[in-house]
Amino acid sequence: MKEGAIVDRRTALARLSSVVAAGASWPKLISKSRAEDSGRRTGRAVRARVRKIATEEAFVIPEVAAALREVAQKGGPSLDLKLMNLIYNSASASTFEIQTPTTPPPTNRDAYARTLLPRLLDLEEHRLAEMDANGVDVHLLSLATPGVQMFARGKAIELATLANDRLSEVVGRHPKRFAGLASFAPQDAAAAAKEMERAIKTLGLNGFIVNSHTDNRYLDDQRFWPILEAAEALDAPLYIHPRPPSDGMAAPFADYRMEGAIWGYGVETGTHVARLMLSGVLDRFPKIRIVIGHMGEALPYWLWRLDYMASPGSRAALRNKLKPSEYLQRNFAITTSGLDDPLALRYAIDKIGIDHVMWAIDYPFQSTPGSVAFIENASLSDTEREQVAYRNAERIFRIS
Amino acid sequence: MKEGAIVDRRTALARLSSVVAAGASWPKLISKSRAEDSGRRTGRAVRARVRKIATEEAFVIPEVAAALREVAQKGGPSLDLKLMNLIYNSASASTFEIQTPTTPPPTNRDAYARTLLPRLLDLEEHRLAEMDANGVDVHLLSLATPGVQMFARGKAIELATLANDRLSEVVGRHPKRFAGLASFAPQDAAAAAKEMERAIKTLGLNGFIVNSHTDNRYLDDQRFWPILEAAEALDAPLYIHPRPPSDGMAAPFADYRMEGAIWGYGVETGTHVARLMLSGVLDRFPKIRIVIGHMGEALPYWLWRLDYMASPGSRAALRNKLKPSEYLQRNFAITTSGLDDPLALRYAIDKIGIDHVMWAIDYPFQSTPGSVAFIENASLSDTEREQVAYRNAERIFRIS
Repeated sequence: MKEGAIVDRRTALARLSSVVAAGASWPKLISKSRAEDSGRRTGRAVRARVRKIATEEAFVIPEVAAALREVAQKGGPSLDLKLMNLIYNSASASTFEIQTPTTPPPTNRDAYARTLLPRLLDLEEHRLAEMDANGVDVHLLSLATPGVQMFARGKAIELATLANDRLSEVVGRHPKRFAGLASFAPQDAAAAAKEMERAIKTLGLNGFIVNSHTDNRYLDDQRFWPILEAAEALDAPLYIHPRPPSDGMAAPFADYRMEGAIWGYGVETGTHVARLMLSGVLDRFPKIRIVIGHMGEALPYWLWRLDYMASPGSRAALRNKLKPSEYLQRNFAITTSGLDDPLALRYAIDKIGIDHVMWAIDYPFQSTPGSVAFIENASLSDTEREQVAYRNAERIFRIS
Repeated sequence: MKEGAIVDRRTALARLSSVVAAGASWPKLISKSRAEDSGRRTGRAVRARVRKIATEEAFVIPEVAAALREVAQKGGPSLDLKLMNLIYNSASASTFEIQTPTTPPPTNRDAYARTLLPRLLDLEEHRLAEMDANGVDVHLLSLATPGVQMFARGKAIELATLANDRLSEVVGRHPKRFAGLASFAPQDAAAAAKEMERAIKTLGLNGFIVNSHTDNRYLDDQRFWPILEAAEALDAPLYIHPRPPSDGMAAPFADYRMEGAIWGYGVETGTHVARLMLSGVLDRFPKIRIVIGHMGEALPYWLWRLDYMASPGSRAALRNKLKPSEYLQRNFAITTSGLDDPLALRYAIDKIGIDHVMWAIDYPFQSTPGSVAFIENASLSDTEREQVAYRNAERIFRIS
């Protein structure tokens, strides 16, 4: 299973720096894989082969990786730095193993995080091989969290544009294997709106991604309304991906790595969506389409209580004209990323409707073989499985 | 349906003050009810009559109410003050309507909050009548959030003791209708442990209640370990009830009344429980029994991801020896309080097991008729319904 030697951190970072310095469009630091062999070797007959579009799949470009490393090295209070340090500031691999259907998920998450950088940087070599090996047809790609949202305004705009150009190029080279969500810099909402328009009208991308808060503010804040206005006008979905909790809610998440995928991500993003629902901003932009991951960031589970406690007009401080469940129906879809639980999937479908649920892996943070086995084996009808695995994604993200 | 005149806030608070000043053991400010009439009037034939023990039912004593009003009037950053001001500092009713099976839930939650004080103060008049009217056999009573946890140390100890004495008295007068969870002052963990012992061994109460954080700290903090040690040694369950998010995570919850039952309660308490699981404190006190409300504060929904991301030893910062799902099985039970959703109930039962789920109303914050209809009509087998409605509560809280 070894695809290449583990190199030390200093060497990996030096290689990354040289790639960035050379202005290479895609990094070549990844050793030649035996991906095709691997794909053929594991090309078993799958019981319930269904087309699969994975809808929350991360990548990074070298320039963004280098800038994230700078942010990590600078330090500060942000809980983002914990994972950023592991991925961008202490990378221990220059290549990685292709996961096949029999590959178990990693047991040491810290060690695994130090191997993520080459997985994030690679798009056309190992990634396609791993998709082949596991029967994944499409990755809907998005810049890894926190994207450009921790950079200074000018740099954020510049790197979002560059990332979108690169994304568009790779989608153009592999139109049947990749689709893409555009990044933007919420630090400058007017510039973001312009880039969003370019991403859809010029680059032909499939929607947008934002990693929750920016400058510790949420999208219900009026300064971000041009972004919501653009998403609505362009009729392209906005994927709200997690970041660790913002500084104003960080304290209880600072221990036990609770800031991230273990717990904080879901709390942070669920809180973000609750703010959107309760602020009335969804009444101002009633046609906006929003996607959230992780089986809906627990909102489907809380929905009865949200409706009971936050019905329109029930409190002076509430601004919503609709019930939270009505917004969820009208404005939201969810993905299964990072929650490969058939029981939770069944609940979510029964609660919010089969049209609103899409499959995702959350590559490379989650196991591709695990997520594929999950969607192939979940107790769904054939029609339901097709809807979750690809049909809803084709419709919602306009992927053909 | 009118059970008494609405009096103005000034009059209600004056009455409350005079009751406290007079040292009355139970307030007499509540007008004589027509409770028995009401009970008979609505004593319809119930399709699936099942014994019902409601396990998260709030009360307050006048002295605690007066002290909470003082805290509210003093002001400060705590998000608790929002609801405390409505209940204890702007009460608009001296009595309330008995809810019958046909009473709709309140539509204006702010206005309703201003009527809660008499509902919380009353135990033997209107409350018993409302229980009768709706076929509720037992209230497992607990001091309303935030209990004594916002008072200075000495006052907190004194008022917890007083509240436990009063609780014990009323349970003694109505042993078939009431059971009780003891309060304690986490501000002084040694004193708390002593009071916990008295509550079980002398007063014969059924367990303990704590309202999440104290001094912005959580129970995994070593200063609170004597409390966990006592709960384990006494083999009596500790109910962790919500408070609004602690100051260190308050910022995004400060708008739209998101601090409370709408959203913040669940996030706060779920985060508290995640801390207990990931800190390893449950390995130090492996026999502790903990109860959480609100259908498990979303932990059952997140469980797959918790196990995946926080398996023992998977990160340097993790301290847990078991998987979160193993702690949930070994150390936790949940109640349905405030989440009368048959689909979420079904999910929770299928996820964590029928032995771990108990019915609750969350009186007086939630509707008694609504919660009764929920447990009577949920898609459960007869055996399952009995377990959730009363058998699990009898076993877990030792209610006979």
